[in-house]
Amino acid sequence: MSLQPVAADALPYSAESLRVWGAACLRALKVPDDAAEEVAGSLVQTSLWGIDSHGIGRLPHYLNRIAHGSIRPQPSITITRSGPSTAQVDGDQGLGMAVSHRANREAIAIARENGVAAVGVSDSSHCGAVGLYARAAARQGLIGIAFTHSDKIAAPHGGSRAFLGTNPISIAFPRANGEPVCLDMATTSIPWNRVMNARREGLPLPAGVAVDVTGRETTNADDTRALQPLGGEGYGHKGYALALMIELLCGPLNGNPFGPQIGPMYEELTRPRHIGAFFIVIDPQRFAGGPTLAATIEHLATALAAEPGSPIMPGDPEIKVAAERSQHGIPIEPGLREQIAEWSERLGVAAPVAMDQTQA
Amino acid sequence: MSLQPVAADALPYSAESLRVWGAACLRALKVPDDAAEEVAGSLVQTSLWGIDSHGIGRLPHYLNRIAHGSIRPQPSITITRSGPSTAQVDGDQGLGMAVSHRANREAIAIARENGVAAVGVSDSSHCGAVGLYARAAARQGLIGIAFTHSDKIAAPHGGSRAFLGTNPISIAFPRANGEPVCLDMATTSIPWNRVMNARREGLPLPAGVAVDVTGRETTNADDTRALQPLGGEGYGHKGYALALMIELLCGPLNGNPFGPQIGPMYEELTRPRHIGAFFIVIDPQRFAGGPTLAATIEHLATALAAEPGSPIMPGDPEIKVAAERSQHGIPIEPGLREQIAEWSERLGVAAPVAMDQTQA
Repeated sequence: MSLQPVAADALPYSAESLRVWGAACLRALKVPDDAAEEVAGSLVQTSLWGIDSHGIGRLPHYLNRIAHGSIRPQPSITITRSGPSTAQVDGDQGLGMAVSHRANREAIAIARENGVAAVGVSDSSHCGAVGLYARAAARQGLIGIAFTHSDKIAAPHGGSRAFLGTNPISIAFPRANGEPVCLDMATTSIPWNRVMNARREGLPLPAGVAVDVTGRETTNADDTRALQPLGGEGYGHKGYALALMIELLCGPLNGNPFGPQIGPMYEELTRPRHIGAFFIVIDPQRFAGGPTLAATIEHLATALAAEPGSPIMPGDPEIKVAAERSQHGIPIEPGLREQIAEWSERLGVAAPVAMDQTQA
Repeated sequence: MSLQPVAADALPYSAESLRVWGAACLRALKVPDDAAEEVAGSLVQTSLWGIDSHGIGRLPHYLNRIAHGSIRPQPSITITRSGPSTAQVDGDQGLGMAVSHRANREAIAIARENGVAAVGVSDSSHCGAVGLYARAAARQGLIGIAFTHSDKIAAPHGGSRAFLGTNPISIAFPRANGEPVCLDMATTSIPWNRVMNARREGLPLPAGVAVDVTGRETTNADDTRALQPLGGEGYGHKGYALALMIELLCGPLNGNPFGPQIGPMYEELTRPRHIGAFFIVIDPQRFAGGPTLAATIEHLATALAAEPGSPIMPGDPEIKVAAERSQHGIPIEPGLREQIAEWSERLGVAAPVAMDQTQA
């Protein structure tokens, strides 16, 4: 997942302060302790990685949906095993992150037991960065693959109007002596939440990634009505096709709606979204190279770093940003600071304080 | 997979004539009947789809490798089940298409039995278009996912020299009343075999997809030393990361070499390539939307066709070309016609005759 630029007027907040604040807000809306900690922790982890499109900046939206009744703070999540290696997890309109972590843990347990797992999620909501789940499997020595979908945001190749979601994929492998190697990408050039952040902060979008209501390219976040698929003008059929396959895996396969049938993330806030996800977890030890896999990946990383241009492994930029932000704080932009203040007041929760203000 | 332009001086050959010719050539090199039919049939099927980079044009190369001893015409393929849903298939340096069909059939059988299968392939060779395998699973009502890798051809994002393969992915779903919907794409903008065909026919490459020995962009197929990852300059980190994950799934996970460790496809013809592949097959009936999946996909296709620009489903272009080529023949370009003539003479096999020559 690409790291996003941060506005100059952002202020740094410690991960811990945001985690405590986020969990308190969720608890104030009757989310149980463990789910509140898990969701706030996952959002802040995502912010630490530098993926601000899916970090703590999304919490106000989750709170808003709980307040409007379209996310249930205390869902009755059910897991149905349909065979030795498959399960369907029904999220009962819960917080997508809590539902998805539960489904992913089931996939991890199945993969340990039977070598591979395929677990589908139905009736859930926005699950955040799918890299959370793939990395969780990889940290336990397994190969994690995670997918989700969304309401219509991406124009299909050959079309000009939003139809599919930005439908991301994440794949992570364990790596010797370090954090997993991890792909985590939207199948559009940029994720929709980057448009939302650009709107909030009044920033432009890069060229060639978005179209307006007429289907013409635009860099104006306010005018943006659809994102273009990964691959651009010449090869957008690839990003589009990948997005469509992910739509089928997460939507129709689990009995969920697809693209245009899904309620919009930031509108119709009382309408449940019935979002799906799909997790595949593989135990490398069932394959010939399993015992040496993590070491071979480290060897590959070393060989890659010695190439001209010193290319880096997918996931390494996030690890580097996390180290930096753990020390110097997570930058929070003015628009988000306002939202944090508003929700703190509304829920009677102590607002987090920026690091430099603390030191002042 | 993108359909490729055909030179004006190509002549049409019937699929049947090319299939008969291909199987005869393989038998002449001691490939058993069933494998010869399967490989020739798969190559011609790929040509029918319009994927000329992976069609019958690759047979001379397979023949050349058998003749040089680096592909075994009669391998001892072994299948080791490592659990209820996983297997390792050792190809014993056989023809990649024969080995991969065998592995994919095992994955299909496992998925039917236990809901999902993950099957890795080791010590094989070029397996052709991965869409062959994903579609084969989807034609049986299952979800097929197929990956393979290759020797170093693609420059990593941030680098300028080839390191990874073009590492394709295919995903196919069953569709009511028709051929499967199917993604089949290289994770570079174009596949390497399109460079080989352009060299053979003296044609240029599109802009922005290839670099020369200095790492600078080129459209000259002869000068091309590495392909750029899907996503181009701004978003090539995505195509690169996807390629790297596929490399790990197909290479190190199965005990095979990776990128720079793999012998080049068209050089060192006596050196076995130890190429891998990876197949995941999922039974939709284990998930909540399984019973209605194929019908929902057809419904989605109809909704999509009604959108501005009438976008089409992935895989539909290939189906359309196949209908056209089944009737009017597969276009064979002059360079390939020469290779066909040479191999026919060398192996004492009757050369196929172009359709318009037959009618003359």
